[in-house]
Amino acid sequence: MRNIRLKLSYDGTNYHGFQRQHESHGPTIQGTLESVWERLAEEKVTLATAGRTDTGVHASGQVVNFMTSARFPEEKIPKAFNSMLPRDIRILQSDCVPEDFNARWSAKWKRYEYQIDNNLIPNVFNRLYASHVPIPLNIEQMQRAANLLEGRHNFKTFAAAGGASKTFERTIYRCLIKKEQGLFVISCVGDGFLYHMVRIIVGTLMDVGKGRIPPEEIPDIIASQERKRARMVAPAHGLSLTHVHYTDESPFEVFRDLTEIIT
Amino acid sequence: MRNIRLKLSYDGTNYHGFQRQHESHGPTIQGTLESVWERLAEEKVTLATAGRTDTGVHASGQVVNFMTSARFPEEKIPKAFNSMLPRDIRILQSDCVPEDFNARWSAKWKRYEYQIDNNLIPNVFNRLYASHVPIPLNIEQMQRAANLLEGRHNFKTFAAAGGASKTFERTIYRCLIKKEQGLFVISCVGDGFLYHMVRIIVGTLMDVGKGRIPPEEIPDIIASQERKRARMVAPAHGLSLTHVHYTDESPFEVFRDLTEIIT
Repeated sequence: MRNIRLKLSYDGTNYHGFQRQHESHGPTIQGTLESVWERLAEEKVTLATAGRTDTGVHASGQVVNFMTSARFPEEKIPKAFNSMLPRDIRILQSDCVPEDFNARWSAKWKRYEYQIDNNLIPNVFNRLYASHVPIPLNIEQMQRAANLLEGRHNFKTFAAAGGASKTFERTIYRCLIKKEQGLFVISCVGDGFLYHMVRIIVGTLMDVGKGRIPPEEIPDIIASQERKRARMVAPAHGLSLTHVHYTDESPFEVFRDLTEIIT
Repeated sequence: MRNIRLKLSYDGTNYHGFQRQHESHGPTIQGTLESVWERLAEEKVTLATAGRTDTGVHASGQVVNFMTSARFPEEKIPKAFNSMLPRDIRILQSDCVPEDFNARWSAKWKRYEYQIDNNLIPNVFNRLYASHVPIPLNIEQMQRAANLLEGRHNFKTFAAAGGASKTFERTIYRCLIKKEQGLFVISCVGDGFLYHMVRIIVGTLMDVGKGRIPPEEIPDIIASQERKRARMVAPAHGLSLTHVHYTDESPFEVFRDLTEIIT
């Protein structure tokens, strides 16, 4: 048996999330990948994934793995997958990993990015990849609030009901907001994320940007551990899983942009 | 009668080009805009356009105009259109122009941009907006060829059959190629473009980038006035009409990036 790891990107617009579901729900990323492997290698496999992205969420650096006994040549895997996958999913890399590697449990940290189109009239080319907020957002106030989310906290306030996690302690290494020509990009890097956590953080930061929550309230909001103290879950289509890390480098060694000082 | 000018952007993916056609051909940009105005103002109008973009071609700075006798308040036009248009078309601006203004004939110059994804594995988020070329392209050779296209020439070599133009003399003010992380952007600025001209220029520059045409052959290719000397029409979905100019400033005054020296 070999344990194969794939790095992939996908446009989540036309998928009912990552996780395989009953077929009547529509296509999923997992279902599509597993079907393609079945056709390539005549073998049913079950993928493990670093992050079970929701309906409409995208990925530029998702990671999955699966155990296979098929003799399919390793170096041909990305090309073979890509020749049979729809054009909105691309396998970027593949390698053979130790038997105990699991895309989810072996991950040390992940980076998500959330895009907000803050132009009065939305950019048509970003309509599927950025959430449109026509009200002006104050980036300085948002970054102040984001800084207060960093560190190790109990993030129960920012966890939607329905998640499987029993513990709520997580570390956010960096929550960084950049703006270029009306497009905000919120990068959130942490050792793990609760159900809908990034989107609830973004929803809360949007309200800070609109002046509805003062940044200095963030520590109280975290401490409350009450879901109702955080805000709306931001729309799915602005979110993308951009990187999953499995070795010991810190996020700041891997991504120089995270150490930029903003505001 | 008022003459109304609109500036608009659209994602051309789901349209059969700009120009209104028989309905059985599928939706067009012109048909969609004219129908929305008919519902807004109970008046049939015919739009004039700066550039009749082909099926699949995009625009971030298209300009149209139409004569109206409806008393619809001018300042409400963009918002009214946008509330009824599909999300892949957005009106960016509108104003009232002199009676003799025509979006096509009054234009002094236009800017088109063509995107090429030169990564081995295409970026899924650009698949509808960039043409994928997996073979490495030599940008220095492409820019050398592009420089030789600049100036006033007879561009018959670069005109597809089926165009309505009787003259082939056009001026290209600048043909500039930039590259960032595997994405090439070819900007083509000129006083007018023949049928498929930008896409034939791009197809030729792609072949230069692949080493199939030496840049120094460009003057001969232009002088030949034979369509077969230029190359394939590059795919439509990489092209976007980004700007149309109606006043006397030169392209170099309006777009500082055009004076950058590349290679």
